[in-house]
Amino acid sequence: MTKTESGGPGGRPALADSVRLTPDGVEILDRRVYPFERRWVRCATSEDVAVAIERMVTQSHGPLFAATAGMVLAAREARGEPPGRAAERLRASGRRLVATRPTNNHIRDAVQAILAATVDGPPPAAGDELVAAVEAAAARHDAAYRDKSRSLGRHTAALLPDGARVLTHCWADAYLIATVEAARLAGKRLEFVCTETRPYLQGARLTAATLVEMGYRPTMITDGMVAAALSDGLADVALVAADRVTLDGHVVNKVGTLGVALAARAFDVPFYVMIEAPDRLAPGIADVVIERRDGDEVLHVLGRRTAAEGTTGYYPAFDATPPHLVTRVVTERGAYPAGQLARHFAEERALEVPAG
Amino acid sequence: MTKTESGGPGGRPALADSVRLTPDGVEILDRRVYPFERRWVRCATSEDVAVAIERMVTQSHGPLFAATAGMVLAAREARGEPPGRAAERLRASGRRLVATRPTNNHIRDAVQAILAATVDGPPPAAGDELVAAVEAAAARHDAAYRDKSRSLGRHTAALLPDGARVLTHCWADAYLIATVEAARLAGKRLEFVCTETRPYLQGARLTAATLVEMGYRPTMITDGMVAAALSDGLADVALVAADRVTLDGHVVNKVGTLGVALAARAFDVPFYVMIEAPDRLAPGIADVVIERRDGDEVLHVLGRRTAAEGTTGYYPAFDATPPHLVTRVVTERGAYPAGQLARHFAEERALEVPAG
Repeated sequence: MTKTESGGPGGRPALADSVRLTPDGVEILDRRVYPFERRWVRCATSEDVAVAIERMVTQSHGPLFAATAGMVLAAREARGEPPGRAAERLRASGRRLVATRPTNNHIRDAVQAILAATVDGPPPAAGDELVAAVEAAAARHDAAYRDKSRSLGRHTAALLPDGARVLTHCWADAYLIATVEAARLAGKRLEFVCTETRPYLQGARLTAATLVEMGYRPTMITDGMVAAALSDGLADVALVAADRVTLDGHVVNKVGTLGVALAARAFDVPFYVMIEAPDRLAPGIADVVIERRDGDEVLHVLGRRTAAEGTTGYYPAFDATPPHLVTRVVTERGAYPAGQLARHFAEERALEVPAG
Repeated sequence: MTKTESGGPGGRPALADSVRLTPDGVEILDRRVYPFERRWVRCATSEDVAVAIERMVTQSHGPLFAATAGMVLAAREARGEPPGRAAERLRASGRRLVATRPTNNHIRDAVQAILAATVDGPPPAAGDELVAAVEAAAARHDAAYRDKSRSLGRHTAALLPDGARVLTHCWADAYLIATVEAARLAGKRLEFVCTETRPYLQGARLTAATLVEMGYRPTMITDGMVAAALSDGLADVALVAADRVTLDGHVVNKVGTLGVALAARAFDVPFYVMIEAPDRLAPGIADVVIERRDGDEVLHVLGRRTAAEGTTGYYPAFDATPPHLVTRVVTERGAYPAGQLARHFAEERALEVPAG
């Protein structure tokens, strides 16, 4: 199921293109071992893709691209079926993909967009026609997401002064790459301080490796050093992505983000959060499911036991930062105070959520 | 230089007696690998002890006992020398031990106490007489420290309600063991949530293993989960030791403590700090040297590389928590608001620091 290769794709950082749709499946760069190994996990079926997402082969923005590719595989799997049955199969694959991880809404929105463009609106199709329609819808959704990320990156870069020392937590994926690219275009120099982000070490591995690939030399700190680093004046701004932002401005992101926000507030450092848009289906924090993952991860690092026997791990994958701790939420439309998101994103809400 | 053994000392937790003075040297339980290996590092000379402390063979309260034992070795090394020369040798060994790690004042105070009781006050001695005097002074200092820790443990236990869920950071050593013993005597049940405490994993290894040896089943979290855990109501109180507390109430402890204090304040959890006494020689935080350790530690876990190549680690071993974030500082005399320490500990200051 896996193959290993050495060397990077050249030019753009490896994680910028970490899901590949091929004629006979989907290949996903294994983020659990990157950059120490450059291994691609091959998924032959939509179900394989769902399992890969559950097992954290990919994470952050990777599941969005994995999900659109997974829907293409589902359409191919339904190629021999009549329209009604093929549509049901697509919907079932979509539900399976959405169920993999509950907190980020990328998968949900990708599946909805593809279903809306293929079997939930237009006249029923099947066979090669359905496959082509799903492939086109998937490609459109991927491209739109990349466009939104580039736009978001420009808005974020505009907030960063030349020479800014940027504290990151976890891995902000396409948003961070887009921000760096936009800052460069604007002639701004940046420096980075990255938390390692236990237990999966996304900061030490994914953020750090990508920044190195882009020509930076990040400073690493452990997750417990954020307050000390900000107190010591090591960074001028804290910058994270969000997995979800509610309409009332709560930021749901990798566990540890709340601590970053508290430290940023305590030491007067702006705390910026990147997300293409708030989730119009989540008015408040009660509408977001916070994923609890297997506590065993907390007891190990890269597969090696780190905690004494007789202990139990507690692993909330995300935490929620209240709006009053957030300086700005940067979206594809611009940067807003967290408490003003509902107003700025109200129109889609009116369009997409039936009134009454 | 090292020997390995299996099994614990029985009865008390292994870390309660982790430095052993023998006829021909000092054996120090290697805390870098405990509890995964139970290895004792043998130091033949006072210089070996200093190197062992620098290399983190022992830490937290271990260096106090290592330093008193190291002074005994120094006296034995000076056995054949005349009084003046022997005294100078003892003082030099003391300076070397004090220079190993600058932030905690245990070593400084231990060396001062032994010198004051042997060569810096009484008529000069030498040979076996000096060795016996240093052995007696070392044993007195160790015993006094254990007494103070027991007293501190009783005062801490008195602050904890029955059934309290206690969040710990790093490893509070003798203070924590004494607190648990006092809580048991008082019939109080406790539960523990422990941060793993990167980079050395003192929480995941030393605190967790010791609590397991004492019959508890701690919950482990990563250092980034403190705010989420307190926000989720996982603990009722945050409890840490300090390496140093200034007379004006600044708490210097393992890096990450400041983040624990900020989270405790944000979620209305009492934040208690244990130290036998504030440092009468440190009126304010400017009087404390914060040790910076090799950043390479941040890039590894248990010797395995965890961060991408091209990164640099930043490793302040300690951080400073301001008095306004501290609920109580628990000393051998009782628990006080951080801002009132100077008043309660003023008399020694008057006694020991010459006026004018």
